[in-house]
Amino acid sequence: MLAELTIKGFLAETAGSAPVPGGGSISALNGAIAAALAEMVANLTIGKKKYADVEGQMKTIATEAALIRERLIRDIDRDSEAYDRVFAAFKLPKETEEEKAERSRVIQDATKEAAMVPMQVAEEVGSVMETIIYVAHKGNRNAVTDACVAMMAARTCVLGALLNVRINLTSIQDEEFVKRMSEKADHLEAEAIRIEKKLLDWVREQL
Amino acid sequence: MLAELTIKGFLAETAGSAPVPGGGSISALNGAIAAALAEMVANLTIGKKKYADVEGQMKTIATEAALIRERLIRDIDRDSEAYDRVFAAFKLPKETEEEKAERSRVIQDATKEAAMVPMQVAEEVGSVMETIIYVAHKGNRNAVTDACVAMMAARTCVLGALLNVRINLTSIQDEEFVKRMSEKADHLEAEAIRIEKKLLDWVREQL
Repeated sequence: MLAELTIKGFLAETAGSAPVPGGGSISALNGAIAAALAEMVANLTIGKKKYADVEGQMKTIATEAALIRERLIRDIDRDSEAYDRVFAAFKLPKETEEEKAERSRVIQDATKEAAMVPMQVAEEVGSVMETIIYVAHKGNRNAVTDACVAMMAARTCVLGALLNVRINLTSIQDEEFVKRMSEKADHLEAEAIRIEKKLLDWVREQL
Repeated sequence: MLAELTIKGFLAETAGSAPVPGGGSISALNGAIAAALAEMVANLTIGKKKYADVEGQMKTIATEAALIRERLIRDIDRDSEAYDRVFAAFKLPKETEEEKAERSRVIQDATKEAAMVPMQVAEEVGSVMETIIYVAHKGNRNAVTDACVAMMAARTCVLGALLNVRINLTSIQDEEFVKRMSEKADHLEAEAIRIEKKLLDWVREQL
């Protein structure tokens, strides 16, 4: 599991001449980072008298963010695995007509899967962004810049995952699938950009 | 050293109720991620006939990016350490007038240092952004989305580090220092936003 590597080791793997882990896994990692920082802001708020009125919500957020962090940590691998499956499909035999048809079908399926994995990641982290907005506004004031960094990591996750969705869509023949996924991607992308900008602008006004 | 932790372990540390590692260390980590992905794109370009004309430049980039990655990995700790020093300074005795004056001096020095560390990180990663532009345009076409994710990570690093600079500037009394640092921060921030947007817009047109 990639997340069992040290940070140093994982970055060395990333830097190397293999295409994975690459942008897709890094996007998932940034999603896990966003969840971890949201959790930290909630934890820095819990138990403080000044924030007693949001104590319950912050406890719920801390618990949920920890679960999302675990899922996104697994997505670091899922993204690289989906890529490997596409790569393996291209190596299938293509001598006979049957083999060609079968190979083409497996490639199409693997590519759809390679588009769906990052789409799920983008959707999951879209909801993390709402949580970050909440902890930034209602959580410990001293951690508001941490909430901003969480939001930027979430944006990288969403936009990076959607780039991976889109690049896979360019080789998928199922037009209905492509249309549906690309509309969803357009929407998630615009939302991620809008929400992040709103938070950063708000915090910058105060500094 | 934080980068010797596993990704899982580091994220658990981040999520916990201590203020560090927090946004500052995550910013440095994103700088190291940006350098690692730039290095990967260069490595995916080296040795390919189609890109023979940029072989020399890509080799230089791979070597330099590896060094920058190492430095930014160390900055993950430096940021947390700078925070710890400010925190320790606040705990100095303040009974006598001499103690008060000494405590105030140490706090001011530690806070200046806590502003200078992320400023250095932001400057270093500003130069990584130029490298990413180069590999995105001249490197292996198949890795162009990886270059985009590198760029987003670099932007998070620069903007996140500058938030840390600015929050420290709010408690520094040396007006000359504050003026100089804030002008530099304004410039680096605007550049990071502009350069990232330019690359993402260019790539999105092609997908």
